[in-house]
Amino acid sequence: MSVFTVVTEQELSVWLQRYNLQLVGLEGIAAGVTNTNYFVTTTHGRWVLTLFETLKLEELPFYLRLMSHLAQHGVACPAPLADQDDQLATMLAGRPACLVSCLSGSDVSAPNAAQCRAVGDMLASMHRAGETFSHKMDNPRGPHWWTQVAGQLYPLMPAADAHSLKQEIHFQSQHRFSHLPRGVVHADLFKDNVLLDGERIAGFIDFYYACNDILIYDVAIAVNDWARNAQGEIDADLARAFLQGYQAMRPFNPQEIKAWPLMLRAAALRFWTSRLLDLYQPMPGALTYTKDPTVFQKLLDAHRQRQDFWL
Amino acid sequence: MSVFTVVTEQELSVWLQRYNLQLVGLEGIAAGVTNTNYFVTTTHGRWVLTLFETLKLEELPFYLRLMSHLAQHGVACPAPLADQDDQLATMLAGRPACLVSCLSGSDVSAPNAAQCRAVGDMLASMHRAGETFSHKMDNPRGPHWWTQVAGQLYPLMPAADAHSLKQEIHFQSQHRFSHLPRGVVHADLFKDNVLLDGERIAGFIDFYYACNDILIYDVAIAVNDWARNAQGEIDADLARAFLQGYQAMRPFNPQEIKAWPLMLRAAALRFWTSRLLDLYQPMPGALTYTKDPTVFQKLLDAHRQRQDFWL
Repeated sequence: MSVFTVVTEQELSVWLQRYNLQLVGLEGIAAGVTNTNYFVTTTHGRWVLTLFETLKLEELPFYLRLMSHLAQHGVACPAPLADQDDQLATMLAGRPACLVSCLSGSDVSAPNAAQCRAVGDMLASMHRAGETFSHKMDNPRGPHWWTQVAGQLYPLMPAADAHSLKQEIHFQSQHRFSHLPRGVVHADLFKDNVLLDGERIAGFIDFYYACNDILIYDVAIAVNDWARNAQGEIDADLARAFLQGYQAMRPFNPQEIKAWPLMLRAAALRFWTSRLLDLYQPMPGALTYTKDPTVFQKLLDAHRQRQDFWL
Repeated sequence: MSVFTVVTEQELSVWLQRYNLQLVGLEGIAAGVTNTNYFVTTTHGRWVLTLFETLKLEELPFYLRLMSHLAQHGVACPAPLADQDDQLATMLAGRPACLVSCLSGSDVSAPNAAQCRAVGDMLASMHRAGETFSHKMDNPRGPHWWTQVAGQLYPLMPAADAHSLKQEIHFQSQHRFSHLPRGVVHADLFKDNVLLDGERIAGFIDFYYACNDILIYDVAIAVNDWARNAQGEIDADLARAFLQGYQAMRPFNPQEIKAWPLMLRAAALRFWTSRLLDLYQPMPGALTYTKDPTVFQKLLDAHRQRQDFWL
């Protein structure tokens, strides 16, 4: 259960006045490991209330304006609600809080090829729609971050794993990617961050890792999750479907085709590192269950030996 | 049938590329007397395409930005889609055209009290949300307009009717309303411009008369239609329900209470005049059926003799 911050109906009713909304009902949402989410039913419809447990109020406009921009451009995602003062987020129960539109659909744990194709297609739409988004945010979890984090982890890890991690970080640092198209990326488009209605994308959710980065790095993060089967291996059919969906709207250029294998490795490295960090240096008081880092270690090893990258 | 401008699937497919959308199907919409509307089904959902038959491309941003603003503030209305260049409208088949989100619901010809209350409530929400809308548009159909139009109509009308029209225009000109709260108004919130799902407002539509004017004038326009029964008389229960719904969110101030009877008369005068104009001086080539002006003449007469105004 992921209601870290409890909101009473009384304090919510007062807060909803800034949206000219009257509370009908409130229901905690179990999903989510970082923030507190509720379904809020009002006389003017149903919304999702998010209370941010770690992000600060002043950090939210980038994410919420991005979601507004994408929704306005037809990308399936929650649209934040603006209050009477035109604010997208304000404080509630001691936390920064926002209301966003309620989407249908649910996440799938074992997607089929058509679903992977639809996600690839919508991700390309998101990358295209992001071209006119004027705000910028550097990726706080880029090469500088993983190099610095890994330095803390090496002494805590088995020597062979530390060697492998060090080797990949060195390998990635040998390559420059500044010539690749950049833009707004989701940066965490795992299966649990997409709501599907059959094969229709009901919405991408959880944009709170979004930032400016290399577009195909975002594709690599998604393919590493969407096409990975229960054995932890990439299913070639799912990977091809995802990439076909993406490239139908936004074909890779020759530099992107060349860099793609390295991007798959970089994306695996990024999540191997963050999961190692959660395992060896968990946040104080974190209620989240630790996810297995070896999934991404194995995936990285497989990518290193792979010849075919499904393009 | 209100498809004045025919769009082929081929030209639409090309135009949809600016939205990164792929056409699945196209279907003309019979409703609407001014513009051409189609349902457009794409691989990323269903939209309403509007081709503007009289408004010019440069006139559209006010209306479309208003709809975006209101939708972002939780007012039930169609949300316009922005294209790859961040434009809300561009040319298609020789007409300015836009895509807006597709709403559920349908219009009702004989609303009940709960539906009137819900419309009043949403209209108050719209007026409040409009407070942060930065663009302005004078009402082109205000006292200056009706005075000038009536001058052309007097010689064409039966003498008694012309006298009555002249009398009301004189009466309204004797009063100043500059002390009343102003804001963005819909200015045409008749029953056919609201989609309802039972007693839930699915959306206000057809914002192409929206402008800045006196807020309770907008309420009067709506009450004159929503509370008017088949005999052309105001049903007191419906009027009270509408006004209760409105005032629960935005209570009239003392000046508004005092001006309310005059506003009901002004709102009747406005539509009596425009219907007389359509009758005596129809637009060349207009395909619209002429609506009966006497409905508003009778309503005005009744308002003149009324003692109770349902507040």
